[in-house]
Amino acid sequence: MAPLGTTVFSEFSALALQHGAVNLGQGFPDFDGPEAVKEAARTAITEGLNQYAPGIGLRALRVAIAEHSARFYGQQIDPDTMVTVTSGATEAILCVLLGLVDPGDEVVLFEPFYDSYDANIAFVGARPRYVPLRPPDATHATWWFDRDEVRAAFGPRTRLLILNSPHNPTGKVFTREELEFLGGLCAEHDARVLSDEVYEHIVFGPARHLRASTLPVLADRTVTVSSGGKTFSLTGWKVGWFIAPPALNDAVRRAHQFVTFATATPLQVAMAAALRLPDSYFQELSRAYHARRERLLAGLTRAGLEVHSPEGSYFILADISGQGHGDDVAFCRHLVTHVGVAAIPPSVFYGPEHRHLGRGFARFAFCKTDAVLDEAARRLKEGL
Amino acid sequence: MAPLGTTVFSEFSALALQHGAVNLGQGFPDFDGPEAVKEAARTAITEGLNQYAPGIGLRALRVAIAEHSARFYGQQIDPDTMVTVTSGATEAILCVLLGLVDPGDEVVLFEPFYDSYDANIAFVGARPRYVPLRPPDATHATWWFDRDEVRAAFGPRTRLLILNSPHNPTGKVFTREELEFLGGLCAEHDARVLSDEVYEHIVFGPARHLRASTLPVLADRTVTVSSGGKTFSLTGWKVGWFIAPPALNDAVRRAHQFVTFATATPLQVAMAAALRLPDSYFQELSRAYHARRERLLAGLTRAGLEVHSPEGSYFILADISGQGHGDDVAFCRHLVTHVGVAAIPPSVFYGPEHRHLGRGFARFAFCKTDAVLDEAARRLKEGL
Ligand SMILES: CSCCC(=O)C(=O)O
Ligand SMILES: CSCCC(=O)C(=O)O
Repeated sequence: MAPLGTTVFSEFSALALQHGAVNLGQGFPDFDGPEAVKEAARTAITEGLNQYAPGIGLRALRVAIAEHSARFYGQQIDPDTMVTVTSGATEAILCVLLGLVDPGDEVVLFEPFYDSYDANIAFVGARPRYVPLRPPDATHATWWFDRDEVRAAFGPRTRLLILNSPHNPTGKVFTREELEFLGGLCAEHDARVLSDEVYEHIVFGPARHLRASTLPVLADRTVTVSSGGKTFSLTGWKVGWFIAPPALNDAVRRAHQFVTFATATPLQVAMAAALRLPDSYFQELSRAYHARRERLLAGLTRAGLEVHSPEGSYFILADISGQGHGDDVAFCRHLVTHVGVAAIPPSVFYGPEHRHLGRGFARFAFCKTDAVLDEAARRLKEGL
Repeated sequence: MAPLGTTVFSEFSALALQHGAVNLGQGFPDFDGPEAVKEAARTAITEGLNQYAPGIGLRALRVAIAEHSARFYGQQIDPDTMVTVTSGATEAILCVLLGLVDPGDEVVLFEPFYDSYDANIAFVGARPRYVPLRPPDATHATWWFDRDEVRAAFGPRTRLLILNSPHNPTGKVFTREELEFLGGLCAEHDARVLSDEVYEHIVFGPARHLRASTLPVLADRTVTVSSGGKTFSLTGWKVGWFIAPPALNDAVRRAHQFVTFATATPLQVAMAAALRLPDSYFQELSRAYHARRERLLAGLTRAGLEVHSPEGSYFILADISGQGHGDDVAFCRHLVTHVGVAAIPPSVFYGPEHRHLGRGFARFAFCKTDAVLDEAARRLKEGL
């Protein structure tokens, strides 16, 4: 465990608090989830749904997850053999690694990555094979990857590919063509796929979220991980899940029962209600996030930062290479201490070899109220 | 992951449901936690405490955990550097293994054991060294262990000893003398200790719960794991914690941030309120459990089963060797299917070598209302 540091989210949340900074660091909304969902949780507590849920999750929630899959992706999944509830997506990710990967196996993942992927690969004694996403340029409108680099990362020991779309922190939404290419490589190498889709409902047209497992080449080999935290602005409830064909689901469940065993019962009841909210809820969510994205993009631009508009997620990577504070970590420390705005330095989301590729960026979250986004923009314009 | 089966709790809970059995299997109360604690959770949800808590836990809860340690054990612990909140004790146990044990290390544990210990040892690639607890006999009033067997289990590769007192499933409460002997062995071998004390408030006089880390020989090397589930009859909330000296705590925290990252925020707020309940709450809890223990002991005896009175926890191991249904698994399957009572076969809590030692027992939980305990007793008397 010695090589693991403290997660950057804890470090910068603490710094933000200490310096009274506007916190655009860790991705949690500063507004609350739907009243009806909160009411469902309170009612469950009152009604005495406070003892262990089944380890695989309350059936009512598993059924709601299956219905949600049918409604949004036309995907038919069996709630009993294909769905398992976890204590947040972070737990689900660890269960996939514990359940499907052996010591010495290789895991392919894109950089930058959510930092638990890398730590979880280390936990199971596997070897990470990193492929960097490349920033938009003259010939690429969005973040992209070099197919030869991906091909080179696959080999005889490849056991798992980790996908994350919409992608944290770049905001990239993987296209069907990209997913088909990646799926083809996985089929060729008999690799499984962990598809982390927690930002599935925060996507901005013309981009559209594709559930990776709806592609025929990926259907049999993919564990989809998601959660209610981002979709329902309840990141503190820590209710997540994974969906997979029965045999894969079963292998990951076996790990789950010895990781947390079960997830908070009353919050599971409420999350089932959340997943059944009408379509209008989901439409309004992405409309509101679209407006917040525009607001922060404008604010960052006014402050002299160069930005690419994300296709999904609630993060913006701003180009800070012209800011002259050394690397991204130094820039973000300066920002939180002297400018009063917390952002996340993305170089920590790279392996050692490609870390320099993250140095020229800072990640800003826009899951915040207008007043907070405006105050951050004001401080940035004044302080940079 | 192939060698892991389905946890016995899931299997027998499902069987109990299917057969309409009275469920004395998995250890969850069929009564609810204190109204004031539930109200605190509802208020936290209403007030918008629904986003990520700090990964190490809400400070309010960590302070309440420290105050509880001072109140009940006279132990002074720093809430910032020595306490970390987890998603239940099960998660805390995994974090200890991930944080302190390397592949190839050895872990000493007593049989029978809570089954996640064994699975978690496998997760980190360590080697279990089992020491069986022996049932009460002519010279031992309670479950006991052979000191030579414990000595023989320790060696140059021993990294961790797992303690569990009050003990699930035997109900044994380890004495100061026993803990001192075990602590001495750990000191000699420079081993750390995981002390699982989740039943700390369910102890029956004259036995008294000793927090292992209050013994000088154990203080510097022990990670204490506990949770609110059993103490406050809220097993479905999944709020646990670990307490350790700063350096040990830090090593285990590093694992925790990549296991679940954080725990349900509103339930943490409420658990802080729970830990501050007056002494009378805790006295009444053990008084009520004492009455339930007597009730179930009497019922099992009337049904012709031989029982030893547990000193702590809410489990009774009944001797079924005279019942003639083959082993404990066969007996418990018969019980749930034909007698209409679910119990847990303890042989699954042994390693392969000593499994036969568990075959003659069945575990009954008494965290149930009087009516349920009486109905179970009635069915057992009729059906056995
Ligand atoms: C535990 S942090 C989860 C992801 C997130 O919110 C972030 O990247 O900021
Ligand atoms: C996840 S089961 C936790 C322990 C318990 O309740 C039991 O042993 O029955």
